[in-house]
Amino acid sequence: MSFNTFGRLLRVTTWGESHGAAIGAVVDGCPPGLVLSEENIQPFLDKRRPGQSRFTTQRREPDRVRILSGVYEGRTTGTPISLVIDNVDARSKDYDAVAQTYRPGHADYAYDAKYGLRDPRGGGRSSARETAMRVAAGAIARLVIPDVTISAYVIELGGDPVDPAAFDADEIARNPFFCPDAAAARRWEGLVDEARESGSSLGAIVECVATGIPAGWGAPLYAKLDADLAAAMMGINAVKGVEIGKGFAAARLRGEENADAMRPGPDGPAFLANHSGGIAGGISTGQPIVVRAAFKPTSSIRIPVDTVTQTGEAATVETKGRHDPCVGIRGAPVMEAMMALVLADHALLHRGQCG
Amino acid sequence: MSFNTFGRLLRVTTWGESHGAAIGAVVDGCPPGLVLSEENIQPFLDKRRPGQSRFTTQRREPDRVRILSGVYEGRTTGTPISLVIDNVDARSKDYDAVAQTYRPGHADYAYDAKYGLRDPRGGGRSSARETAMRVAAGAIARLVIPDVTISAYVIELGGDPVDPAAFDADEIARNPFFCPDAAAARRWEGLVDEARESGSSLGAIVECVATGIPAGWGAPLYAKLDADLAAAMMGINAVKGVEIGKGFAAARLRGEENADAMRPGPDGPAFLANHSGGIAGGISTGQPIVVRAAFKPTSSIRIPVDTVTQTGEAATVETKGRHDPCVGIRGAPVMEAMMALVLADHALLHRGQCG
Amino acid sequence: MSFNTFGRLLRVTTWGESHGAAIGAVVDGCPPGLVLSEENIQPFLDKRRPGQSRFTTQRREPDRVRILSGVYEGRTTGTPISLVIDNVDARSKDYDAVAQTYRPGHADYAYDAKYGLRDPRGGGRSSARETAMRVAAGAIARLVIPDVTISAYVIELGGDPVDPAAFDADEIARNPFFCPDAAAARRWEGLVDEARESGSSLGAIVECVATGIPAGWGAPLYAKLDADLAAAMMGINAVKGVEIGKGFAAARLRGEENADAMRPGPDGPAFLANHSGGIAGGISTGQPIVVRAAFKPTSSIRIPVDTVTQTGEAATVETKGRHDPCVGIRGAPVMEAMMALVLADHALLHRGQCG
Amino acid sequence: MSFNTFGRLLRVTTWGESHGAAIGAVVDGCPPGLVLSEENIQPFLDKRRPGQSRFTTQRREPDRVRILSGVYEGRTTGTPISLVIDNVDARSKDYDAVAQTYRPGHADYAYDAKYGLRDPRGGGRSSARETAMRVAAGAIARLVIPDVTISAYVIELGGDPVDPAAFDADEIARNPFFCPDAAAARRWEGLVDEARESGSSLGAIVECVATGIPAGWGAPLYAKLDADLAAAMMGINAVKGVEIGKGFAAARLRGEENADAMRPGPDGPAFLANHSGGIAGGISTGQPIVVRAAFKPTSSIRIPVDTVTQTGEAATVETKGRHDPCVGIRGAPVMEAMMALVLADHALLHRGQCG
Repeated sequence: MSFNTFGRLLRVTTWGESHGAAIGAVVDGCPPGLVLSEENIQPFLDKRRPGQSRFTTQRREPDRVRILSGVYEGRTTGTPISLVIDNVDARSKDYDAVAQTYRPGHADYAYDAKYGLRDPRGGGRSSARETAMRVAAGAIARLVIPDVTISAYVIELGGDPVDPAAFDADEIARNPFFCPDAAAARRWEGLVDEARESGSSLGAIVECVATGIPAGWGAPLYAKLDADLAAAMMGINAVKGVEIGKGFAAARLRGEENADAMRPGPDGPAFLANHSGGIAGGISTGQPIVVRAAFKPTSSIRIPVDTVTQTGEAATVETKGRHDPCVGIRGAPVMEAMMALVLADHALLHRGQCG
Repeated sequence: MSFNTFGRLLRVTTWGESHGAAIGAVVDGCPPGLVLSEENIQPFLDKRRPGQSRFTTQRREPDRVRILSGVYEGRTTGTPISLVIDNVDARSKDYDAVAQTYRPGHADYAYDAKYGLRDPRGGGRSSARETAMRVAAGAIARLVIPDVTISAYVIELGGDPVDPAAFDADEIARNPFFCPDAAAARRWEGLVDEARESGSSLGAIVECVATGIPAGWGAPLYAKLDADLAAAMMGINAVKGVEIGKGFAAARLRGEENADAMRPGPDGPAFLANHSGGIAGGISTGQPIVVRAAFKPTSSIRIPVDTVTQTGEAATVETKGRHDPCVGIRGAPVMEAMMALVLADHALLHRGQCG
Repeated sequence: MSFNTFGRLLRVTTWGESHGAAIGAVVDGCPPGLVLSEENIQPFLDKRRPGQSRFTTQRREPDRVRILSGVYEGRTTGTPISLVIDNVDARSKDYDAVAQTYRPGHADYAYDAKYGLRDPRGGGRSSARETAMRVAAGAIARLVIPDVTISAYVIELGGDPVDPAAFDADEIARNPFFCPDAAAARRWEGLVDEARESGSSLGAIVECVATGIPAGWGAPLYAKLDADLAAAMMGINAVKGVEIGKGFAAARLRGEENADAMRPGPDGPAFLANHSGGIAGGISTGQPIVVRAAFKPTSSIRIPVDTVTQTGEAATVETKGRHDPCVGIRGAPVMEAMMALVLADHALLHRGQCG
Repeated sequence: MSFNTFGRLLRVTTWGESHGAAIGAVVDGCPPGLVLSEENIQPFLDKRRPGQSRFTTQRREPDRVRILSGVYEGRTTGTPISLVIDNVDARSKDYDAVAQTYRPGHADYAYDAKYGLRDPRGGGRSSARETAMRVAAGAIARLVIPDVTISAYVIELGGDPVDPAAFDADEIARNPFFCPDAAAARRWEGLVDEARESGSSLGAIVECVATGIPAGWGAPLYAKLDADLAAAMMGINAVKGVEIGKGFAAARLRGEENADAMRPGPDGPAFLANHSGGIAGGISTGQPIVVRAAFKPTSSIRIPVDTVTQTGEAATVETKGRHDPCVGIRGAPVMEAMMALVLADHALLHRGQCG
């Protein structure tokens, strides 16, 4: 199957290939009456946009989004919102060499095995270019939950972690890595430069935090908030691991260490810790929701790798196109978008059942 | 919302509370003609069944499953299969003390915040008892994909990992921990005994491997095989992290290290490594699928923890019921079941679209 | 595929065969806090229950429903509600003769063609017995929309229509036909007696009206309220036609005749007519919703009909079991239930998106 | 809610307003490898296209469809197919007068009640213009089921039925009414001319027949083939009634008259009649599938009708835009498209579960 719709009440359907005429999304189920124009979306696309520093791909896509439906006189009407971004700077000839050769780490072989054919230009449908539409849709989702604040930042790049004590929220927008630690950001410049120059690539770990969520969002047992977030994040290109709250580290704590004790607070129970990452039993607790994702190093590298061709011959492949030396960096705005989409959907679902 | 159905073509709907009359599941969309009786299901339930050693909860549930529909003369008819397990050994009075008090780490507070009321007996709907139905449904899913072999085992308990070099598949069934390393299993006896006696609890990391899957299963982009697995595993009680293949470790590799090179093989491309964990672009590659999940330590502990009551008073809570000192152990058969359900669903989905 | 779940936010999954151990349903997504016990459901089942007069099947099923989950201390908890009715008076031996022979008008041949096998006892899954669970679930749906009143009644039986001028709502419960016209009910006694005695059967047309619905429920464009009602009604056993408002008669009116003119009213616009049947553009207008369904004559008749056996031999079949001479009669409470399910689901969906 | 996706495995999501920049659809789940270009779609759009005779609206839309994704080198890739049609001849000023006034029979009031605002230009999202995208998507669905033939034709217009004895399949394409009876087509010219000139409108009944369907498609119990068709047809603008096979007339037959007797045939059972319209128990029987829909007269008429304004004042409205005097005529290609979409979806669903 192909299944390109995300969400239950707030549903996003995306379409488009990396080197096709355009990419797009249809956002359905958005509440009516929200003030919406391209201006609400463009800043988030600009954060994710390629070609803004030497640390991301040099493909120059202006990524100008157009709204083709669902808005009348500046407000959402409750009907589907069609979003389109034209592809401008596609260089498909870069891909002639790899059209017949499977790039290890890419979806080339798997798509061929599934569908019997594939669009090889820029990775076609499996390209991370599609995530631009998630970011666009996520910008609309944010309008659905205006009291929620969402921030994603890179906490480790190429195995080099930030110093938690140096966390500075204002720093995130100041460097090209969405890095909350100025010293780490400086170190990462060298790391990424080296990787790019040597034709290699690096992985990263990105954390995304959402605040302002009331207790009670979530849909047990098979649309749990954490399960939905796990699917949302694992579905981002290059993500190989997801954790909530303490995540894997929780497996090394004892029960009394991991418990988030509570005390009476001015507005209801106040938690003394947030090992749970803001979710218990699949439902939000009112604490910040904390999710981390591990991005593997970009699979497109200039270093030759052994592989086979579509016809089964041995070959080596080195990817010539323009690529991110570390896809995890631009993964940060995508994680924010997925967080927004999951939370907005659950806000509506909760209101639907529980009023 | 409450949403208790899992899957797309092969759909499982579960119901029931820990201390209600029974728990059950409806398995819909199962292919017709499969040989099925309670005998196909019971062995998997027996693996998960509580009360089998001193290392799991002492609640004595025979967990005898009955099939009430969907089977005629020993074969599935293609119509919904209703499964029921009676609750036998519920001691609801154990919960009188906590009915008005939120147990930290549990869903008590979140359920109350969402629904305004909850069934406190044994955790009600949020109890891990529900996972018995996942195991039962998973046993049916296995029949849908008879060429697939699925095995889950604990690779770390209380921070103590197994030795990969000592991995012995036959050992898994020989100890009460689903541990593939005999020496580790012996160490864990001491760890778990200590935790149980001190009223504490431990976490664990469980790995689940599936083999025999052809390349091509998966549904990009929003029902990717890895995203579906992430949701399936994160939705298991106490799981706080999920990773596929190299997972978080992949974020520390360079592109050329992480690449799964290919060479021509006798039956198509042969991979030289499996960092991807058998999935690329959301689609199976034909390699083994490898998933790990981190289980937090059981939240039910006898060590007192600060909390608040339903009416907002400060309190301390110590959980008196019978509990697993390490829920991760019994998580292994549940992970196998979820793996089976996801794979069987995708097998049908793939056949639906791609023939 | 087999697909046994109805609804989007309020979801009902039914299971069970006519002559299996039991039939059941899981109602998921029900709002929490509703007062619910078997007493809320049983009266609706009793209306549909067989064996209450000589005009329906003589199968004697007490149809006592049990609630197995989702209710705590008399209130819904927001978690799935499991409903079960044991099958008591199944006489499967009646079906030995037809197990190998396709009964014309029944699903026997189609099920065999689809699944390669079927449960022949009492029609198995395709039996109208399943509609008992719709009625049970519908009783819960009514609690979700307490301001809505739903009433279904037979307006034509065996080609003999009621006199609209003689419509008497109180009469509906006084005769065994759910007939709102006392004179017609008397005539129908003769019609049904004759059909039953001659081994034949009759069709019927049933109208279902719901009042108390605010303007604004519905989900354009592919979950329109009228489209959902059409699916709900067409999915009832033996229904072959559905119409809303003026229905087929509207095709014979001119635009100015069919227009539902409006005038200012005390509580907003007041309609001067209701040709639309309370739905425009897939959304409720606030007027009564009016749906009619055509039930074919019962396919189980004692008059021999030409057919073939499973192995392709010519045969004749006469159905010996106990059957309704007119299934349309007991279709009335089923239509009410489906109306309640559709409306309750849309009430929640509307609240979800539009607040 | 707004819900603009149709189908389960083959899913169509449409977007766009009558007078927006464009309308579009995303077709997801299409099998890979089908030969597809705009040339496969355009002929069906041309059949539905307005402005081709004096009997339909005079809006001149070329309705040129573009495929923006999902096709590579002339074949479907299994990924979402994005279809767009630009709106060219929108005259929104025609609607200034009605922007504040509810047009009886239209969705104006219901949309306002639901969403609190609406796009009044040409009916916005509720316009029948959206059906162009159903026709485009339906053209793709036909490619999924190449052995199935689908034909819809008008059998009654303005209360004047065709003569079944005069049925001539070749005649359907020869007149502007999709009428299979040449004599009726001539009579209808006068009927429609009169209605148009007097500012009135007419209803119609359209029949749609599909042949070449194997026995076994359908998804009992809540995605029955007939229930899905009923929803599909009732969801077409202006449809108020749907029937399958004998439909409402079956309610007036006796059981032995309505039974579709069978005899052994060369390729399995041969039916002696088709009262069922090709569906039993929600599953195809292998006979032709026959569906009829009743279209109300166009609500947009020049004859003044009493109504109210958005602010609740009494008013009269006469619709000045360019409209079809009988929307049922152009409903024929839309019914064909919906039939194709339902059947293609069920073909894939059946293959998914039953292989």
